[in-house]
This record gives sequence, structure tokens and C-alpha cells, in this order.
Amino acid sequence: MNDFGRRSAEINDLLCILNVLNWDARTQMPAGGSSARAQQLATLSALAQEKLLDPAYEAAARAVDGDDVETRAAQQALDAIAALRRIPAELTRELALLKSEAQEVWARARAASDFGLFAPQLTRMVELNRQLAEALGYEGHPYDALLNLYEPGLTVETLLPLFERLRDHHVPLLRAIQERPQPRTDFLHAHYPAAQQKRVSLALAKQFGYDTSRGRLDESAHPFEISFTRQDVRITTRFQENFLPGALFGTLHETGHALYEQGVRPELSRTVLASDLPGLYAVGGASYGTHESQSRLWENRIGRSRAYWNLHFPHLQNIFPRQLADVDTAAFHRAVNTVRPSLIRVEADELTYDLHIMLRVELERALIGGELAVKDLPEAWNARIRSDLGLDVPDDARGVLQDIHWSAGMFGSFPTYTVGNVMASQFYAAATEQMPELEDTLRRGEYTPLREWLTDNIYQHGRTYTPHELLTRVTGRGLDPQPYLDYLSGKYGELYGLDIQKEQTA
Amino acid sequence: MNDFGRRSAEINDLLCILNVLNWDARTQMPAGGSSARAQQLATLSALAQEKLLDPAYEAAARAVDGDDVETRAAQQALDAIAALRRIPAELTRELALLKSEAQEVWARARAASDFGLFAPQLTRMVELNRQLAEALGYEGHPYDALLNLYEPGLTVETLLPLFERLRDHHVPLLRAIQERPQPRTDFLHAHYPAAQQKRVSLALAKQFGYDTSRGRLDESAHPFEISFTRQDVRITTRFQENFLPGALFGTLHETGHALYEQGVRPELSRTVLASDLPGLYAVGGASYGTHESQSRLWENRIGRSRAYWNLHFPHLQNIFPRQLADVDTAAFHRAVNTVRPSLIRVEADELTYDLHIMLRVELERALIGGELAVKDLPEAWNARIRSDLGLDVPDDARGVLQDIHWSAGMFGSFPTYTVGNVMASQFYAAATEQMPELEDTLRRGEYTPLREWLTDNIYQHGRTYTPHELLTRVTGRGLDPQPYLDYLSGKYGELYGLDIQKEQTA
Repeated sequence: MNDFGRRSAEINDLLCILNVLNWDARTQMPAGGSSARAQQLATLSALAQEKLLDPAYEAAARAVDGDDVETRAAQQALDAIAALRRIPAELTRELALLKSEAQEVWARARAASDFGLFAPQLTRMVELNRQLAEALGYEGHPYDALLNLYEPGLTVETLLPLFERLRDHHVPLLRAIQERPQPRTDFLHAHYPAAQQKRVSLALAKQFGYDTSRGRLDESAHPFEISFTRQDVRITTRFQENFLPGALFGTLHETGHALYEQGVRPELSRTVLASDLPGLYAVGGASYGTHESQSRLWENRIGRSRAYWNLHFPHLQNIFPRQLADVDTAAFHRAVNTVRPSLIRVEADELTYDLHIMLRVELERALIGGELAVKDLPEAWNARIRSDLGLDVPDDARGVLQDIHWSAGMFGSFPTYTVGNVMASQFYAAATEQMPELEDTLRRGEYTPLREWLTDNIYQHGRTYTPHELLTRVTGRGLDPQPYLDYLSGKYGELYGLDIQKEQTA
Repeated sequence: MNDFGRRSAEINDLLCILNVLNWDARTQMPAGGSSARAQQLATLSALAQEKLLDPAYEAAARAVDGDDVETRAAQQALDAIAALRRIPAELTRELALLKSEAQEVWARARAASDFGLFAPQLTRMVELNRQLAEALGYEGHPYDALLNLYEPGLTVETLLPLFERLRDHHVPLLRAIQERPQPRTDFLHAHYPAAQQKRVSLALAKQFGYDTSRGRLDESAHPFEISFTRQDVRITTRFQENFLPGALFGTLHETGHALYEQGVRPELSRTVLASDLPGLYAVGGASYGTHESQSRLWENRIGRSRAYWNLHFPHLQNIFPRQLADVDTAAFHRAVNTVRPSLIRVEADELTYDLHIMLRVELERALIGGELAVKDLPEAWNARIRSDLGLDVPDDARGVLQDIHWSAGMFGSFPTYTVGNVMASQFYAAATEQMPELEDTLRRGEYTPLREWLTDNIYQHGRTYTPHELLTRVTGRGLDPQPYLDYLSGKYGELYGLDIQKEQTA
């Protein structure tokens, strides 16, 4: 291993350790340990950043004269170093302080449903993120600089027309659905004991190919996936005993993330290409959006399909015979695909979810661009919920205060959820085209062909390619919403008996 | 916080993180994660050592001009730095390599019960530990230098007469016991479901005052206690469904260690006085022996006492009514205090345990001193087991290969188990003397007075004092086996109906 490789391995080790500390804090740690843990995390993050910004590391990266993959790794390291160097130390310090303060204030404000309480911190957070955007640099809109932190290369210029097409499609589709009768969902709210939910969830994750000799499933308040190299990729879910789909689809979602991380090529372990260097995370995927494309693909495209439940519903019924006594596969499939406008993003169905995301993205872009003042934010939020979803927001807790993201300073991360949906359908379309037998294998419950295709085409590469490069290599084109729109129209058209004229590919 | 405090805090954070990684590896990690974890541990250990040996840290320690406690902390840092600097880098490297290799070879040799397989590694390990002793320096015997790593200030000169007195007491007592009829122990081997064992174990730990808002109980192959500051002190035990005492007393033992760590004064968190700097561990106790004194005190002195079971046996019987149907408190108390020579140290009773330890100590001292060759070790071992315990060693697996310590390079750690026993009785005698009502409180199941006395006198100080200083402050004298001998004679005299002439205090 050369000097660049050794130093990169050390940095990746530290990032993996940060992940271990975070996993433990969220799944195992007794309450009393939290402040000591925060100090341990701060010390280790600072050390990782120090190693990354060590001039000797930059020199080692510049000295790399290896194959294409090593050159890409070195270039990513140099880009990350340059980006971090552009951020004034004072701004980093202020942001770190404000983040911990703002999250606390936000939690209190949400509990009291009082936006005014949080407004001063949010105002400052917008200001600091604007400064961050200026420091990082951009060509078009300042929001581009922040987007780039989560989805390298994504710009407002690409995003806006994409979102416009989605909105033009989603809103009429939602209206049409709302005119149709709603399916039964009462049985989803029967009593489902957590222990049984856990057994089923884990069994389904393993069927997708989640390797538990390199992973484990635990419970946490908010489900997540986290990895400490491809050899140890853990997922969590949350068991609600009066709502079956939460843990079930939560597990399938995190399994999609986990398959990505477990599928990274072994040679990329402990390299820059298994690390998000600017973000100082140990993560193997190309971007937030690419990662999300895989969680959505496995959760929604596979896990909410009729073929999936044709195969697995009888098994589920065996485990929960009383709860699902008078339900058949079709009814279950309809129930877990119900579209119903709601106030809370994390509880939204596939279709309205994008509307929740687009609303946030357009508001945060306007905040960063200076076109919207923080004091006008709740009104803008509520107006949009009204026009998109036809709902009145009864209080800020169920409105503008519901997400942690802004208090955590994560401006620019929301778009990746919807970008992930779009990419998922592009990847799935490419897989179907290249493997005509794919749908047949899935109908038989054989998930290996799909997983291996995704591994060959996506997972194994870790962060070798930018999301745009990867998408172009695999699908032959950049971000393209058409396959996603076709999927949604087809699926809901059938489920709700709609007569939909398929939009033609542009 | 001054520069010394800041740097010490950072080092302590890293040591606590190493503990988190080790806890996870031993209780949660999927098998596939082990090699990546080993690299993470190696990277972080090297970083901690780098921080400790940074000349700026030494300068910061020299610049300390604070109160007595801070001065002691600075002195301990300087001593640790000096000790580590005396060890040649090449020796450190060789030892690290040999340790990982030797533990693997030892595991194979033990499985095959073939000492010859392990002999080359052990020979090299003895040689490197002799070099380590020379590098560290000593006045009397080279073994002193190694002893000092685990029990600062302890020497062969102190240890030998102490052990002689113990042997002169233990061997005749054992012979006398062996002439008496043995109690029933069959019911200890009934079927005890693990889940119930866990509930009981945790309840008993909490009765002693183990604070689960700052700790948790898990299962692991070998029970241990580990802390990441006083705010997060975790214990493990092992549940054998056909042997109740294992998990039960294992938990009480680890609880003793945990009470020590949870009782360290909050102000000592993240300081040198909550770290074993030369060993690079985050540990709050004065020494291995002092720590062991507390696990033994709570496990044996309290947990195996008649008063304890008078109070708790009825509860145990409620939980395991079938298994303990024809057993009464007296019978249970006798069963868990059975003395019976056995081949395996970790399964030994209180009395023969010391004989196991003394045998190892005398052999390892002779190995380091060059008076015993590795090839003659099995024979020396077997002869000693014969003369001390009256048993024939049927194979090396149940003889000289049973412990991991030598393959892990831990020469000098064995004495601390017996030193811990001796100290436990000294501390207990002092507590009884200073609190005449102590035995009454214990009879009523009130453990707070004892725990608070131990906290005030021992736990709160962390590593502020050397073991000798601490012992002298608390008991008025150095290591003194008399209270321990009195305890054992009294206890077994009563249990086995022996007529023992109490040895008078020297």
C-alpha cells in the first residue's frame, strides 16, 4: 500500500468508528452516556478532519500515479480537501455550535408547536448556510453549492424542470385517485406483536440477500442503515404493535441501503471510494440520491408489488392468522399501496411523498436565495399544503416544524429523496431491458438475479463514479423521470381503476 | 480547561472509544466484521499512543501547576510517557505481531491439546517479555517490571512471603475440608432458562446499586465489565442453562467492577485519573488488584454469604420453584460455597482459586527469571497440580494450555486476582470497623451504606492513588493477608464443621 492508500485507510477507519459510536448511541447506549458520547464523537470527528487536511495527505494524493480507480480516489480526496479548505474555520465552528443549539430549540418548538420559538435559530441557520454556499462556490444558484454536498453535480437548473414534470403528473393523478373509493386498511392496525414482526422482517430482508453474517437488525426510534466497511452493515427498524407496515417496509427500505453497502467491491474497503470525505461519513454509495434509489427500489418497486405479495402474503397470514383472517392478497396489496394526502412526510405514500419533498425543496431554495424570509415560511408552507394536498395545517408541529433537517443544517438534502425515486425507476427499467427474464424471476421470489445485476452495475463501484456518470453508464442517459412516471401511472391506474393516457417519453 | 486537561480529555475520549469498539466486538458484532474491526482498533490505538507521546503533551504536563490532584495526574502522565519511551519501537511492533499470532496458535494448540504446537510462540513471548522487563527497568527481579504494569509498586519481594502465608493456610484447610462429607450440588445443574436467569441477575445487580441509567447487562462468551466514562459502564455475563451459579455470581462479580467505575468522581471523567495510560485503557480503578478486590468483595464476601441468601433465596425459589423444590437456604448456601479441587481455574471455588493463581505466578516468574525453560513447563505445571490439589492433569488442554493470558503476552497479571482477594478482606474489615452497624444493614439487604463507604474511600478516587497508598489510607496498613485468612477459615470452618485454631495477627 502506498502512502495515499495508508492514509486513506486510516481516515476510513476513523469514519467507520464514528459510525460504530453513532450506531451504539442510537440502539444500545444507556441514557446517561449521551454527553460523554457527544464528546467522544467531537474528538474523533476533529481527528478525522485533521487527518484529511494534513498537508502530507494532499501531497500523497498528488503523488498518486496509479490505475484509473486510484486516480479517481486521489482526485476525490483532493476535491474534498479543497472544498473543506474553502470553508473558514470560524464558519465551521459557528455552524457546529448552532446545529447542536438549534436542534434542541427545534425539539422544544415542535413540542410546543411554536414556530416563533425556532425562528431566530432558523434565521441564523439560513444565514450561515448562505455563507457556506458562498464559501464553497457555485455557478448558477447558491443552493447548487449545498445540493452538491449531498448529490454531487446536481443543480437547480436540472432540478426545477424535473420537479415541474413530476408535479404536473402527480397532482392530477392524486386528484383522480381521490375521486375513487378507498380500500380497507383497518386490518393493518390490528395488534401485531413486536417479536413476530421482527422475525418476519428479518426473514424478508434475508430473502432479498441481506447477509446477516455481515449485518444485524435492531430496533431504534428512527430506522436507519449504517456500515463499518462492507463486512459489517447494520440496519434498524421500529416496531409499532398497532401498525404492521411500519416495521415491515421500514426493514425492506433499510435492506435496500444495506445491499448497496454489502455489495461494494472488497478492494474498495478502507479507501476513499468507500467514504464520503467532505461529509466525513463512511458510506459506500455514489450519493444520497443513488443510495435512496436502492432503498426505494427494494421497498417500493419490489416490496409493494403485487408479485411480491402473491408469493409472501400466505406466509404472512400464517404468522398473523387472526389479524389477517378476512384479508386476501389483493386486499393486502391495495392496503399497503393506499394513496391518501396527509400532513406528515414520513407517513406519506409513494405518490404524495414527492409532493412533500418538492414543497420543502422549493421553500429551502427560496430561503437560501433570499427570496423568502423565515418569518413568512409557515404561511408559505401552509399555502402549499393546501394547494398540493388539499389539507389545512392545524399547527406548526404538523407543519413547518415536523422535520429535523433544517435545525441540523441539512439544506440541500431533501431533493435526494425524490431524485432517488426517479433513479430507482431508471435503474429498474434498465435491468428489465437487459434481463428480459427479470419479472419472471421476481414472480418466483428469486431476488438474486436482480441483486447481482445491481451489484455489478451499481453497488460494487462504491463512490467510484458521480451519480450522473453512474446513471449514464447504466441507463444510457442522465436523470429522466419518464420511467418513474410510467411506473406510478401504471400502478395506481390499475389499483384505483383509472383510465390513464400514458404520457409519451420526451 | 488548560492545555494538559484538554489533551488528557482527548486521550481519554480515544481510550473510551477503544472500549466501545471492544464491547461491540464481544457482544454485538457479526462474525464478518472481525478483520475490519481489528484494523479500526489498531488505527485508534496507534493514534492514542501518538497523542500520549506527543512532545506537546509532555510539555503541557510539565507546565501543570495546579492542586494536588492535578499534579498527581500530570505526574502519572509523565511516568507513563517515560515508561512508554523506554520501550524500543521495534519491541512494541514485534510484541503486537507476536500477540496476534500467538493467540491464534494457542487456540489451535488448546483445541488439539498439544503444548508442542504452542511452545515456539511461548518461548518467543517469554523472550520478548524479558526484553520488555529490561527496557522498563527494575530494581529486584525482572518480573517486578511486568508486575508494575498491572499492580503499580508490587514486587516479587512483597509477593513471595504473601503467597507463602496463603499457601501455608490454604493447603491444610483444603485437606481438612476434603476429609469432610461434600454437600449436595445436583440442583445447581437443573434446567434454568436463560431469560429468567437474566432477569434475576439484573435485579440482584441493581440491588447492589448498579445504575442501569448508566449501564446495561448483555451476554458474552466470557463475562466482563467495561466503561466509557462513569456515565456508561456495561457488564456482561454468560448464561448456562444447566448451571445456575455461573451467570448469577458472574453478574455479581462484574457488578463489583461496575460499582467501582460508576463511583469514580465526576470531576475525574476525561482525565488521566480515569485512564490507565501505560496500558492505554480507559479504566477508573487504582490497579487490576484493586479492581478485582471490588468484584470479589461483592461476589464472594456479600454474594456468597449466608446473610445474603437468607434474604434472597426465597425470591430465587419463587422464580425457579421446580428446580429448587427440595432445597432450603442452608443447602443452597452450602452448595454455592462447595470447595472441590478442580483442574480449571475459572471454575474453581474461592479457596482453590488462589492455589491456581499462585501456581501460575510462580511458573511465570521462573520463566521470566530464566530459571524455568518453556519445554519443562508442562511437567512443572502438572507436578504442582498434583502436590497442591491432588489431581492428575489428563491433557495439556486442561492443564498448561487452559488460559489465554500467556499467548496474549500478559505476564504479571495473574497475581492481581489473589492480591484482589487479600485487599477485599482488608477493605471489608476496615468498613466493619468503621461502621459497626454494617453487618446489620447487610442482613436487612441494605447495600447502600457499604457501597457509599466504598465510594467515599475507594471508588471516587479513580486512579488518584497507587494501590499501596489507597490501602494504607483506608486500612492503615499495606498488603496484609490476615483478614482474608480469618475470613476463609471462619467461613469454611463453619460450613464444613471444622475445628480451626485461628492464626493470630502477625
